[in-house]
Amino acid sequence: MTSIDQTNNFWVMNSMPKGANFAECFELKQESSIEVPSGSILTKNHYLSMDAGTRMVMTDREDSYLPPTPIGEKLFGTVLGEVVHSNHPDFNVGEKLRSWGQWADYSVVDPNTMYPSKVDDSKTDLVDYVGILGANGWTAYVGVVETGRAKAGDTFVVSAAAGCTGLLVGQIAKIAGCKVIGIAGSDEKCKLICNEFGFDGAINYKSEDVSAKLESLCPEGVNVYCDHVGGAITEAVFDNMALFGTVAVSGLLDYYGSSERSPGPKNYDLVLMKRLRIEGFFSPDFYRREHEFNPILRRWMDAGLIKLPIQPTKGLQNLVDAYSKLFDGRNIGKVVVEL
Amino acid sequence: MTSIDQTNNFWVMNSMPKGANFAECFELKQESSIEVPSGSILTKNHYLSMDAGTRMVMTDREDSYLPPTPIGEKLFGTVLGEVVHSNHPDFNVGEKLRSWGQWADYSVVDPNTMYPSKVDDSKTDLVDYVGILGANGWTAYVGVVETGRAKAGDTFVVSAAAGCTGLLVGQIAKIAGCKVIGIAGSDEKCKLICNEFGFDGAINYKSEDVSAKLESLCPEGVNVYCDHVGGAITEAVFDNMALFGTVAVSGLLDYYGSSERSPGPKNYDLVLMKRLRIEGFFSPDFYRREHEFNPILRRWMDAGLIKLPIQPTKGLQNLVDAYSKLFDGRNIGKVVVEL
Repeated sequence: MTSIDQTNNFWVMNSMPKGANFAECFELKQESSIEVPSGSILTKNHYLSMDAGTRMVMTDREDSYLPPTPIGEKLFGTVLGEVVHSNHPDFNVGEKLRSWGQWADYSVVDPNTMYPSKVDDSKTDLVDYVGILGANGWTAYVGVVETGRAKAGDTFVVSAAAGCTGLLVGQIAKIAGCKVIGIAGSDEKCKLICNEFGFDGAINYKSEDVSAKLESLCPEGVNVYCDHVGGAITEAVFDNMALFGTVAVSGLLDYYGSSERSPGPKNYDLVLMKRLRIEGFFSPDFYRREHEFNPILRRWMDAGLIKLPIQPTKGLQNLVDAYSKLFDGRNIGKVVVEL
Repeated sequence: MTSIDQTNNFWVMNSMPKGANFAECFELKQESSIEVPSGSILTKNHYLSMDAGTRMVMTDREDSYLPPTPIGEKLFGTVLGEVVHSNHPDFNVGEKLRSWGQWADYSVVDPNTMYPSKVDDSKTDLVDYVGILGANGWTAYVGVVETGRAKAGDTFVVSAAAGCTGLLVGQIAKIAGCKVIGIAGSDEKCKLICNEFGFDGAINYKSEDVSAKLESLCPEGVNVYCDHVGGAITEAVFDNMALFGTVAVSGLLDYYGSSERSPGPKNYDLVLMKRLRIEGFFSPDFYRREHEFNPILRRWMDAGLIKLPIQPTKGLQNLVDAYSKLFDGRNIGKVVVEL
């Protein structure tokens, strides 16, 4: 254990959020020194990645994909920074790192449990490592190629299409040769995904009947649906699935705000009637495959086939505003806090 | 078209059943001659296979796996009989046949749409061709081996475990090397599947808390669940699924009685939290693979590894009683009407 004299600002969860009242529940606190346990490292953070999936650990659910964050604990997510102190032989001061870490100026990282990965920002922006070259990119790749098994000629639908993963999913499905329809929450987002990101069609779920519009855009039926939301949108897509279609589930945004479990679609029996495959997947399961995914994603990025807008919010103190964008529809592309 | 002077008794659906009031809705009628269209064949039926999945076409749902039976039409299912008239060069009088056909003394079979398959009853009972060597056997095989991908050491659960497909599923899962738990609706059935069919455990869903009992029988979690019922039982199994588990859905018995669509489990989000795969499958999709499945099933049957009790009801006029067994819990093994 090393004690380091360094002022550190960090966010804690004082009470469990209900819906998106993060401002009431999160508190920015300060400590004047940082304890770095034996075997751990300390990073000075440059970016905090804002990811909707972290909402799940702000409930009391014991049966989610990660254990709940205890009340009063530091909040955490994926961070990008550089090593400023190391009690571990594999990590050296000055190295740039992506890992799980506290939402703070400085994060204490246990390499055994927090997935640190050294990143090379000499040829790409550091922030790309929480975008195309990070968990969102990998999730998009797995969703389209592996779980979705999308192939040329397929009709492909993605929800939360203007979000970070959604934008990447849509572009990768285009690379795979699919007809791609995105579902998003504003006309601006719908125009953007079609005009700037190559989607073949878009549906504004706030103003349009998703099921009817899908039926008119895809009378042939939907072969692959990458589901990021669940709920009514998923029901509308189920209605329009083709026989033997695939529903690749990597997010259920509609339910993250609740301690309750999320019910299945009302038309769930279509899994049998249409012989669907519904499959969930979760990025920490394939973090270790970064070395497989990133050369592919990098090649597509360099060829101009995938791109990702970054939405930075400056200053740790403004984290709540940045995080809230994921839940109130203001996010387009990757939301980060820049320190 | 050939008109054949032959008295024929047949069942029609006069009104759409609600729940299981088949006696009110079905009527036994008689015709004095049978029209056999050009290209079709006529079978004299020996057995009518009673299958719960046929309940689905007695609703007005247009989005099920098969179109609804029009009011006043002859009811149909799988029949076993012999050809007594042929207007098709591939079929000859005297040949034994399994096919789709009307619930009648004689069925008119269009070979293009009704899946006729010649069967050899010289070495096995004819009735086996609607049991182990028919759609139930194939469904069980596909459910365990292909959709379920069960492997040695897996914990395996099947619902409607004393039903025809359930009994076969459980026995095939034992052949695959799984620990097998069956869910059934009476203590008698639970004893039977453990004592006579090699199941490792059983749960009476009518008297026991399925979720709690599963937790005690399978603290390691359920790797594969063959779902024949949907509803509350499926929710209880979802609670106990292992990470990366599989739910192979070949039936949703709880909902066949309704024109409504069947809602998903209340804990559907476990598909993401536990990274489950839920996949529907439907036997007509693989009827054409009979020649692959039956040698395997026959070998297991001859080796005494799988067996199936037959529950015959004698007389076409008693069909409603036989059919009702599928829905009121009186069925154990294969229910047939013997003519």
